[in-house]
Amino acid sequence: AEVNFSGYGRFGIGYVEDRTGDVDTVAVVTDADVTAETAEGVDTDDTILVSRFRLNIDGIVETDGGVRFEGRVRLQADEDAGNGEANSAGLNGARFSVIYGGLRVDAGNVAGAFDNGINYYGTEVGLELFAGQYSGVDYSFLGYSSTGSGANAVYVNYSVGDFSFGASYDQRTFAETAADGSDTVDADRWDIGAAYTFNNFSAEIIYGQTKSVGDLDKQSLTVLALGAEFGDFSGTLFVADDDVAAESRNGTAYGLSAAYNLGTATTLQFVYGDGSADDDLRQIAVGAIYDLGGGASLRGGIGTNKRGDGESVTQADFGAQFNF
Amino acid sequence: AEVNFSGYGRFGIGYVEDRTGDVDTVAVVTDADVTAETAEGVDTDDTILVSRFRLNIDGIVETDGGVRFEGRVRLQADEDAGNGEANSAGLNGARFSVIYGGLRVDAGNVAGAFDNGINYYGTEVGLELFAGQYSGVDYSFLGYSSTGSGANAVYVNYSVGDFSFGASYDQRTFAETAADGSDTVDADRWDIGAAYTFNNFSAEIIYGQTKSVGDLDKQSLTVLALGAEFGDFSGTLFVADDDVAAESRNGTAYGLSAAYNLGTATTLQFVYGDGSADDDLRQIAVGAIYDLGGGASLRGGIGTNKRGDGESVTQADFGAQFNF
Amino acid sequence: AEVNFSGYGRFGIGYVEDRTGDVDTVAVVTDADVTAETAEGVDTDDTILVSRFRLNIDGIVETDGGVRFEGRVRLQADEDAGNGEANSAGLNGARFSVIYGGLRVDAGNVAGAFDNGINYYGTEVGLELFAGQYSGVDYSFLGYSSTGSGANAVYVNYSVGDFSFGASYDQRTFAETAADGSDTVDADRWDIGAAYTFNNFSAEIIYGQTKSVGDLDKQSLTVLALGAEFGDFSGTLFVADDDVAAESRNGTAYGLSAAYNLGTATTLQFVYGDGSADDDLRQIAVGAIYDLGGGASLRGGIGTNKRGDGESVTQADFGAQFNF
Repeated sequence: AEVNFSGYGRFGIGYVEDRTGDVDTVAVVTDADVTAETAEGVDTDDTILVSRFRLNIDGIVETDGGVRFEGRVRLQADEDAGNGEANSAGLNGARFSVIYGGLRVDAGNVAGAFDNGINYYGTEVGLELFAGQYSGVDYSFLGYSSTGSGANAVYVNYSVGDFSFGASYDQRTFAETAADGSDTVDADRWDIGAAYTFNNFSAEIIYGQTKSVGDLDKQSLTVLALGAEFGDFSGTLFVADDDVAAESRNGTAYGLSAAYNLGTATTLQFVYGDGSADDDLRQIAVGAIYDLGGGASLRGGIGTNKRGDGESVTQADFGAQFNF
Repeated sequence: AEVNFSGYGRFGIGYVEDRTGDVDTVAVVTDADVTAETAEGVDTDDTILVSRFRLNIDGIVETDGGVRFEGRVRLQADEDAGNGEANSAGLNGARFSVIYGGLRVDAGNVAGAFDNGINYYGTEVGLELFAGQYSGVDYSFLGYSSTGSGANAVYVNYSVGDFSFGASYDQRTFAETAADGSDTVDADRWDIGAAYTFNNFSAEIIYGQTKSVGDLDKQSLTVLALGAEFGDFSGTLFVADDDVAAESRNGTAYGLSAAYNLGTATTLQFVYGDGSADDDLRQIAVGAIYDLGGGASLRGGIGTNKRGDGESVTQADFGAQFNF
Repeated sequence: AEVNFSGYGRFGIGYVEDRTGDVDTVAVVTDADVTAETAEGVDTDDTILVSRFRLNIDGIVETDGGVRFEGRVRLQADEDAGNGEANSAGLNGARFSVIYGGLRVDAGNVAGAFDNGINYYGTEVGLELFAGQYSGVDYSFLGYSSTGSGANAVYVNYSVGDFSFGASYDQRTFAETAADGSDTVDADRWDIGAAYTFNNFSAEIIYGQTKSVGDLDKQSLTVLALGAEFGDFSGTLFVADDDVAAESRNGTAYGLSAAYNLGTATTLQFVYGDGSADDDLRQIAVGAIYDLGGGASLRGGIGTNKRGDGESVTQADFGAQFNF
């Protein structure tokens, strides 16, 4: 039985074209009687100090029979990306795991089959990982929450040889109205996926759906993702089909990501993500990582975000990350 | 000087007949403009995923003269027992201790003489400890708060040979009205107890009272609890007299609990608690613990809760606990 | 790469003449329907249980080239000094550091040049450090926040031989009105300081200013502080000039502090702080520390606080502190 601590810190400069956020009014400073008055959607500094402090707290027990139990709570502090001020650190919802041989069962604030996917995220770009190949996806799948309570769900993973299977189930209940004792509606979510690794390649397919709730139809997402590694090169290909509430975001999403090790310390990165729907988000970005040794690195990226016919927004960042 | 970490995780399935709770409305999901709308007392799933993650953070110093100073803050996450969703972890109020020989003084978020009683709780049943011999007690004594700030009180314990004595004092002030500068009323609480261990038996008597406040009379609680251990059997007997605000809950409370080790790994449990008042809570439950070694165990229980002439409510749970 | 924990606990008795605070109303206790009703500025107990639990959580990485990266989050619980009840522990905003040779750069929830000053605080008196030589200063400089998110700022320190230089910059934006998309006003703060150590003396000068915001003029603070150590004696002299919003608090501030080691375990302390402005705060206090070894000590102080022509308020405390 032991308690383990791990995590990382990262900090640097982040730029977002025409950044907006919620800021306190001048009155909070100049008028002693005003303690909290905020304006939303205000033009703030495009370039701010970005940062994250993440600490994983893991309680670990192994039984006489070799079954491993784990409990995790995460402590995390991020800057407020809107107004550039700091946030206090917070704690998230707990995740519990039982692990035995190739079988793993997670309960509580868990990641589902998508969030656990080996090629779903591919290479993400920037100190803040602000761009990814999945940008065209609009389905809200079960994900691990680092700063909130998360879902109270179950995820099962089984690995045997080169195969692995994962599936999650998230029971959710909503009230029809805000009246006490209101009738309820179920909006359960589930997902299931399989991955296969062969030689230098890996392939995975994942499907998930959310039950129809109120006047919202059933929503779903199917993802096919391929990965490859050859020497200093690694890359992923991503195709997905999402069926979500917003018609203008339905349809195919696709993307690719690549990383290349240039010499011993530098890694170059490229990400492209888009979708076929009128209002999907397109992301194109390049990045670089320079390894300082000991778990520290310099990282940065630059790219553009463009949703549908909206304006293209340039985003860039640069800074240091250190893993402890 | 050192910082120590300890705690436990537990998770499993919990059943409460006709469970109700507070849940978000469908509008929160289907209407982008609605961010927080909740319905109270809604019928939720009777069977939910129950869990707790508890981490004790202890700062410990020992002086050259052998006086030990301790400070403790607890980090804890529990599921929301009403709606079955997860809660984020939180921090409680700090407790400070000075320990020298048989003398211990606690200050801050402390447990009083009842909460520190050696036989008060007896054996509690279930993964969630949902049933206890004390169910007929309605007096609100000074207890350690795992998820809130707790009281800012003082507890003293002194042990000599087979005797131990404990007493607490909690200074509390309330305002008569909500007006600024309102007059105040004291509602101090105190309790005192003594315990004696002899051969296979232990006996304790504890008394506590809360000052009359507003139109509430003085409230009090007296407890007599006996414990016995013979080989694989242990048990406790509990008798109490409480004088509280609600007439219908005044009077005698009584109960018993027992545990029996069946073989090397299994423990069977039984709990009964009730009271003489019209509206006291009766709990009857049986449970079992199966030791997996290394600090992990499987636990479960089943029982009924019945308050006064209300309906009997069945409760059950099953899951794993692992201590780290 | 490692995660380090350190901190301290302290607890004892604190007295403030005519203490007032916010307390719950009796109705919260006596009326089941009332859950939160508070009265402000109520006369509370002058003598309360004071306490603090502080835990620093440091993630530390050193690169192959000897550059040190640190991230810190602090967990802290304090009593509510108004009503004498306990507060739950909380987490503050994160601070990030890069250290290489004599150069240190902090980002996030940082301390500025004043808060990092070697003689700014001098000796502070009491278990709670309730009196200091700087009491006449009313300028709000960039300080490290132990219980809030703090500023998201940058501080740079460079030490070479007996010299050290420090400077901070805090970018702050306020909205002119509470309307969405309101125009903004900058209220950036910066400060800069230098310190020199020679033989038994140290001298530092620090200047800081805050940009004019709304109808508030530019505010500023200049501090000159000297320190000396001779055998068992140490002392500091403090002179400052602050230009703040309140005319009645503008002008010169001055003070001194001294500590004397009496024998091997006892330290006596004296603090005096005042200002030339009509409404400045004067503090005079004496204190003592008795070392118990192992990082524990008994501490206490007594003094008076007097703002302008207001009444003199006596404050005193006594208790134990233990560093872990």
